[in-house]
Amino acid sequence: MNPIFEKLTPWLDKAYALNSALVLFEWDNETEAPEDASELTARAIETLSNEYYETIINADVKKLLKQLSSETDLDAKEKAIVKDLQKQYDSMEPIPQKEYKAYQGLTARASSIWSRAKAADDYSQFAPTLKEIINYQKKFIDYRLKAGKSKMKPYDLLLNDYEEGFTMKELDDFFETLKKDILPIIHMVTEKKDKINKDYNYRLYPVALQKDFNRMLAEHVGFNFKRGVMKESVHPFTTNLHNRDVRITTAYDEHNLESAIFSTIHESGHALYEMHIADDLTGTPAGCGTSMGMHEGQSRLFENNLGRSTAFWVPLFQKLKDTYPDSLSDIDLDHFILGINKSSPSLIRTESDELTYSLHIMVRYEVEKMIFEENADIDKLSEIWNKKYEEYLGVTPEKDSKGILQDIHWAGGSFGYFPSYALGNAIAAQIYAHLKEAMPLDDYLEKGNFQPVNDYLKEHIHRFGKTKTTNEILNDMTGESFNPKYYTEYLKDKYETLYKNL
Amino acid sequence: MNPIFEKLTPWLDKAYALNSALVLFEWDNETEAPEDASELTARAIETLSNEYYETIINADVKKLLKQLSSETDLDAKEKAIVKDLQKQYDSMEPIPQKEYKAYQGLTARASSIWSRAKAADDYSQFAPTLKEIINYQKKFIDYRLKAGKSKMKPYDLLLNDYEEGFTMKELDDFFETLKKDILPIIHMVTEKKDKINKDYNYRLYPVALQKDFNRMLAEHVGFNFKRGVMKESVHPFTTNLHNRDVRITTAYDEHNLESAIFSTIHESGHALYEMHIADDLTGTPAGCGTSMGMHEGQSRLFENNLGRSTAFWVPLFQKLKDTYPDSLSDIDLDHFILGINKSSPSLIRTESDELTYSLHIMVRYEVEKMIFEENADIDKLSEIWNKKYEEYLGVTPEKDSKGILQDIHWAGGSFGYFPSYALGNAIAAQIYAHLKEAMPLDDYLEKGNFQPVNDYLKEHIHRFGKTKTTNEILNDMTGESFNPKYYTEYLKDKYETLYKNL
Repeated sequence: MNPIFEKLTPWLDKAYALNSALVLFEWDNETEAPEDASELTARAIETLSNEYYETIINADVKKLLKQLSSETDLDAKEKAIVKDLQKQYDSMEPIPQKEYKAYQGLTARASSIWSRAKAADDYSQFAPTLKEIINYQKKFIDYRLKAGKSKMKPYDLLLNDYEEGFTMKELDDFFETLKKDILPIIHMVTEKKDKINKDYNYRLYPVALQKDFNRMLAEHVGFNFKRGVMKESVHPFTTNLHNRDVRITTAYDEHNLESAIFSTIHESGHALYEMHIADDLTGTPAGCGTSMGMHEGQSRLFENNLGRSTAFWVPLFQKLKDTYPDSLSDIDLDHFILGINKSSPSLIRTESDELTYSLHIMVRYEVEKMIFEENADIDKLSEIWNKKYEEYLGVTPEKDSKGILQDIHWAGGSFGYFPSYALGNAIAAQIYAHLKEAMPLDDYLEKGNFQPVNDYLKEHIHRFGKTKTTNEILNDMTGESFNPKYYTEYLKDKYETLYKNL
Repeated sequence: MNPIFEKLTPWLDKAYALNSALVLFEWDNETEAPEDASELTARAIETLSNEYYETIINADVKKLLKQLSSETDLDAKEKAIVKDLQKQYDSMEPIPQKEYKAYQGLTARASSIWSRAKAADDYSQFAPTLKEIINYQKKFIDYRLKAGKSKMKPYDLLLNDYEEGFTMKELDDFFETLKKDILPIIHMVTEKKDKINKDYNYRLYPVALQKDFNRMLAEHVGFNFKRGVMKESVHPFTTNLHNRDVRITTAYDEHNLESAIFSTIHESGHALYEMHIADDLTGTPAGCGTSMGMHEGQSRLFENNLGRSTAFWVPLFQKLKDTYPDSLSDIDLDHFILGINKSSPSLIRTESDELTYSLHIMVRYEVEKMIFEENADIDKLSEIWNKKYEEYLGVTPEKDSKGILQDIHWAGGSFGYFPSYALGNAIAAQIYAHLKEAMPLDDYLEKGNFQPVNDYLKEHIHRFGKTKTTNEILNDMTGESFNPKYYTEYLKDKYETLYKNL
């Protein structure tokens, strides 16, 4: 180990321990803590968060990072850790601690203001808080750009936090391609959508039976219950302490068969990434997925490219029918495959289908760009939002709860985060195209054999953690950097084939 | 707030936050963490434990405690916090940190060595580790006595850690009384025990039904699910983050009706104590039960004095029968009450009945006294143990797993802890006698009305946390300090009445 890097390890250990505690508190809060607990527990969480801040942002760490920046003999792991720590440092240090704390308090309160406004269907109740959050964000961007003597554009800085190297230039191109290639498919599909009868999906599927089926499904795709936990929460998510403790949740609705199924497969995709991180990286800042987009690439690959394919359901469909004999007696595999791939432009992102999903993201991307680059009037965001939905998806929200108030992200200060969802879709398609070349993928799926898929993903993507960037991984694996054409081609092929005989 | 005390608050907040994280990790480990997680998670836990140690044991806290020791205007809360912190300080500071860490590592490993020895039924596999633990304990006692210039006897120091003011002098008297008063009752009961047929208890009680019944039972005695969680673990326990987050576990055996029922009532007794701590104390070192014995006093009161009474089961027995119509069809309330109060000297403490329980503790107390006061040969402890069981309970363990290896406590270094279980029994009986005077207790129980009981316990015991000692609480409430005669009288009355007509 590099001797200067070695001096950093006590700080890393402490940061890891504090972060683990924070992860566990969040997991507990979402899945188990009693109703009345949160206010008092928040005191402990706040103290631990401050401890974490001070463990990363202090004169000793600053000095070590400076020394390490000129070290030439760091190995890949050390380099990745230093890079990640430097990134955290650069994004937090320029912000006065007092303002940072005030901002944290604001976002902590904001989520309940957002949920009340959503319940009241009234954006104007949330707008003043959103304005405050955005003002802080703009101020923080300013501090960071000045400290880094950077000429980066404000929104590019935010985008870079989530997906390095994907700035507005790349994303404008990306969304332009999507618009050009996806909109015609949507028009073709929208005309025919009523030919697919999906009523079966809303029959009765008892939650107790769903629990068993979904646990089996997670296991089927490779989720290792010796290293993982599966539970319930209102919004499904994945979290982890290290590569031997990875946790997912799902949510059950007894009148929606698909909802839990695809969220289970989706979260399992995230979980497998974290379970496959190399042992020498786990528990360090480099020991997790390399980026939001690559993470979403894994979950979307499992959920959509694999999980909505015929081959995937060949070994499972009879089990599904056996689980719910009454509700699925009249449905065959072909009907089910059409059902889970039915596309229909809609208002809600999290309920949208594979084909229209990225357009929901495009709306958010364009609105965020207007906020940070064009000083958009925050009070008018609801109208802007609605117009864009009309333009891209042909549907108009009649209520704010179905429009601008649908997502929690902005209440938590997450700007620049949404595009990684769309990037994830494109990354998934690129990996999927490659897997089809690299192995007899459909044969494996038809046999219910996920081992070769997981071995391959582990070997070429997962185990590296943050020691490789998204593009390094894609290049080394497929011989090509990020390329959205696989995504649009995949959608075109898929929907043309599916709708051919309708 | 006293201005010097105010300077202590950042340390208290940090210690509280770290301790909360450690509590949550332990809860998670016992109830949810995946099988393969523990080794890696232990790294984070160890780091947080060291942080906790350094938050309490440092020059700043030492100085503040010294200054506070001469402050005269501290209020009850401040006094209790300073006292508790001073106690933690005095017990940890004299021990060199290196030895403390090595000892922590030893006890962490010891539990698996203990469980392997228990599985192999071979005390000699555990004895060397136990010897090491005891040697550390003796060394630590030595450090502490020297630092405090104390002439206390070694075992008294340990006893005092768990129950202030109850040294060997008090406990020798206490156990003498028990021996004298309880042994004759046991002889009377043992002769008649075969007249109670308890076969019904081992019929089939499906776990899913038990879960519902036990949840209802916890609610019945006052457990507030808005402030609490109930889950499963191998060994039932209670833990809490603060007074709005109190958690209990139970363990289900489909061929043992009683097992989960009485552990649920027992843990609910512990939980109610913590739920009723005053709001201005919770989250501070004074914001929990005042002592082990008083805590056990609450759990035993609920489990035995209340939970095994006829009045308790009047409003519940029909519900119990309705829950398990097949297995309880031929059992009436009188039979059930005899069943749950059947006494029969046995080998295992945790499975023992109310009457013989304290004799199990007496054996452990005498063995611990021999270890710390008479330098007993650790290799011979198994034989000593077995002889004492023969003498007091009339049964001899044929295997170490049913003898000296049955409890995990010593593997964790908990010496001096066991007597608080017996003290708890006596405290429970003293409170029970008082409650019968203070209110129409049986009327309330027969109506299933626990509110007056809980209100009374909250008002006179629970809310004070550590601002009153065990004896202060007993004195203020009953006009008398700890007095074991209530316990022996209670047992005598109860068993004479129960066995009168057999």
